[in-house]
Amino acid sequence: MDEFSFIRSIQPKFYRQASVMKGISDDAAVIRPLDGDFVTAVDTMVEGVHFTRETMDPEHIGWRVLAANLSDLAAMGSTPRFYMVSITIPKRWSEQELQVVYQGMKRLADLYDVDLIGGDTVSGQELSLTVTVIGSVSKDKARYRSHAQAGDLLFVTGTLGDSRGGLEYLLTGSTASSDGLDYLIQRHRTPEPRITFASSLASLNRMALNDVSDGIASEANEIAAASRMDLIIDPEVVPYSKALERCYPGHYQAWMFSGGEDFELLGTVPEKDWAVVEKTAESVGVRVTRIGYVEHMRSDSPSVWLAKDGGRERLDASGYTHLKEEGE
Amino acid sequence: MDEFSFIRSIQPKFYRQASVMKGISDDAAVIRPLDGDFVTAVDTMVEGVHFTRETMDPEHIGWRVLAANLSDLAAMGSTPRFYMVSITIPKRWSEQELQVVYQGMKRLADLYDVDLIGGDTVSGQELSLTVTVIGSVSKDKARYRSHAQAGDLLFVTGTLGDSRGGLEYLLTGSTASSDGLDYLIQRHRTPEPRITFASSLASLNRMALNDVSDGIASEANEIAAASRMDLIIDPEVVPYSKALERCYPGHYQAWMFSGGEDFELLGTVPEKDWAVVEKTAESVGVRVTRIGYVEHMRSDSPSVWLAKDGGRERLDASGYTHLKEEGE
Repeated sequence: MDEFSFIRSIQPKFYRQASVMKGISDDAAVIRPLDGDFVTAVDTMVEGVHFTRETMDPEHIGWRVLAANLSDLAAMGSTPRFYMVSITIPKRWSEQELQVVYQGMKRLADLYDVDLIGGDTVSGQELSLTVTVIGSVSKDKARYRSHAQAGDLLFVTGTLGDSRGGLEYLLTGSTASSDGLDYLIQRHRTPEPRITFASSLASLNRMALNDVSDGIASEANEIAAASRMDLIIDPEVVPYSKALERCYPGHYQAWMFSGGEDFELLGTVPEKDWAVVEKTAESVGVRVTRIGYVEHMRSDSPSVWLAKDGGRERLDASGYTHLKEEGE
Repeated sequence: MDEFSFIRSIQPKFYRQASVMKGISDDAAVIRPLDGDFVTAVDTMVEGVHFTRETMDPEHIGWRVLAANLSDLAAMGSTPRFYMVSITIPKRWSEQELQVVYQGMKRLADLYDVDLIGGDTVSGQELSLTVTVIGSVSKDKARYRSHAQAGDLLFVTGTLGDSRGGLEYLLTGSTASSDGLDYLIQRHRTPEPRITFASSLASLNRMALNDVSDGIASEANEIAAASRMDLIIDPEVVPYSKALERCYPGHYQAWMFSGGEDFELLGTVPEKDWAVVEKTAESVGVRVTRIGYVEHMRSDSPSVWLAKDGGRERLDASGYTHLKEEGE
């Protein structure tokens, strides 16, 4: 494969944003800052570790690695602007397949007018994609994990565990029903980061947000730890899809908590702001569910609790293990 | 290896810059922009492709991958501010060795007050480091390859081919002399990007710059192509070190043109600005040599020429091959 012809083939024909002074074609990209702060994150996905050809087509691989990154920006309440892709290419991947990987990224990027402004192309033994994303957020409106306060309510977007269900089917071919399988597979392969929802809440003064990359058990524990608060979740109202329940009746309850990569958002807001969150969610077509609340710590260490039968039990970050012990 | 304890061990104790609103510890980093434009680049180095344990200690690996990135920023005339590191870790690397890789990066970063603000840690079969750097540059002062104009003079910093010489010794153990070997090895393992030199020239209106990652033959052709100009180089004045000449008398002339990874800067400036370039170089302790000039294209395609015996011969991007044919 000719590296230069490959780079030419993935190079954008134009940039959507006027703030791109220099994109791909020099030693680095040059950007004119907009108002506000800028937000940046990087994520790597490796073939055989984060995805396989058996469960993902090249287009899905591209979509998903960018989705994971844009989801990080959404979890900061920021609007994505730019991305850069560093790719490690093994000999067994053809130039045409790799172009489809980039098309998968571009398809998602185009939905949000995000420009590809740089990258690197190297050879190696395993396909690996490292995506750097850059976004912008109004000054002091970034949504930190540490922003939860006692009295806040806890909410989550969408339904949970779907991606885990889709992956299960792709790996094992085993399912209790085929009704809704396509939906689960799509949720795994081409997840939709909650960008518009998060950036539409810029009017709110304070909000904690985390994206659900490792399951809400893990994400809730991160918010609790960063805010030094306890989070209490009502497991009866945690949202799941009918499709997941039908296809995996023995697993869906565990996967709601431990299933990763749904790229939904878990957040806390003051009670008085809930109406705005609900209205915004409706206007952008995203489901949002109130699933609990924030309290001062009961002990010296911040914890996440499941409210059960009038009592509570601790939900640890792994979630899955814990719930399994509870007699799944 | 415990990923979380490793991340804690490499996490900065503090940030040197007040513009870091949020570093490592959330979904993304948040930065308050300074005046001017921002500049960003990404580079990946893979074990077995870009370095080996035989030629590099862990500390050198870290230093060098960050140096390559900071050199890209220098080549834009920008001041580095932040970096993020995505690392793919195979089982054969110990946590302690990896910490030394990060120390190598930190040692270089600290010289320029550059903050580590984010990253990712994943497992895989080959050690791979992807570094994203972000810098700032005064508005409209980024140094593009396309900025060369007819009448400009062409200059280069430092000496060329040293890194190639150091690598040769590390790979083969063969050399004509041991006098200066340490210097060549150090130039290969811990190259010094020309950051201060480039950013100190901010007063100049126009300058083309490229960093010498692939040899000046390649870099000169890139400037020629982007500017649609011809570049003429006087091979008699291209700078090399006495150490390289002594250790590799049969190779140094080729390596001056084709040897990569010296991370020097190749640039063009209007004749009237040369005195400022020379003075700046002296004040920051960097050698600078005028090696040629810029002309309008002689044909339809931009070319680089070596002035020889009153005539010219074309220098292609690979440099090495061409000069070899010339009877090295």
